[in-house]
Amino acid sequence: MLESVIRRNADNTERIMKNAMGYVVSNNAIGTIAISSYDNTVSVGIMKLICGVLVAAARSAVRDLDSTNDLCFLRVVTRKSEYLVAPEGEFTIVVIQ
Amino acid sequence: MLESVIRRNADNTERIMKNAMGYVVSNNAIGTIAISSYDNTVSVGIMKLICGVLVAAARSAVRDLDSTNDLCFLRVVTRKSEYLVAPEGEFTIVVIQ
Repeated sequence: MLESVIRRNADNTERIMKNAMGYVVSNNAIGTIAISSYDNTVSVGIMKLICGVLVAAARSAVRDLDSTNDLCFLRVVTRKSEYLVAPEGEFTIVVIQ
Repeated sequence: MLESVIRRNADNTERIMKNAMGYVVSNNAIGTIAISSYDNTVSVGIMKLICGVLVAAARSAVRDLDSTNDLCFLRVVTRKSEYLVAPEGEFTIVVIQ
């Protein structure tokens, strides 16, 4: 299922990747890396810390403030780069630029 | 000290506030609301959940991935609004738009 989504979006991915440093797509259901431009160590770090811990903290903060609201997107600006985080149901897409 | 910073930036605050729904400035050192456009209940909720829990989770994720890096800014896009979060040393500024 994911492979066909990725193949269908290959052009978009390439366009996004022109300005990006890298990307990670994590499968939240089974806690694995679906696809990544990084090596395994960096990918697993981003999956656990960004897709896991940070998205969960952001989603619960948003819902605690308003139980009818929900998290759509997260942009984490750091000194060295930016993490663009899109939690999309089964998958979380992270682009680093 | 903060009062003079806020007075000095009154024009900027007004300009930012034209498109915003509200803002909260929290004093991280003593865990209080420095200034807010919301009532106390909402302000304390935003201070605890956004300035406290979420900023800490984001900062530690960024540092765990690269100990020489640091969090500069956080944008939390939700279905109903956006939280623009600027952790500035002693104070954290949150604008909701």
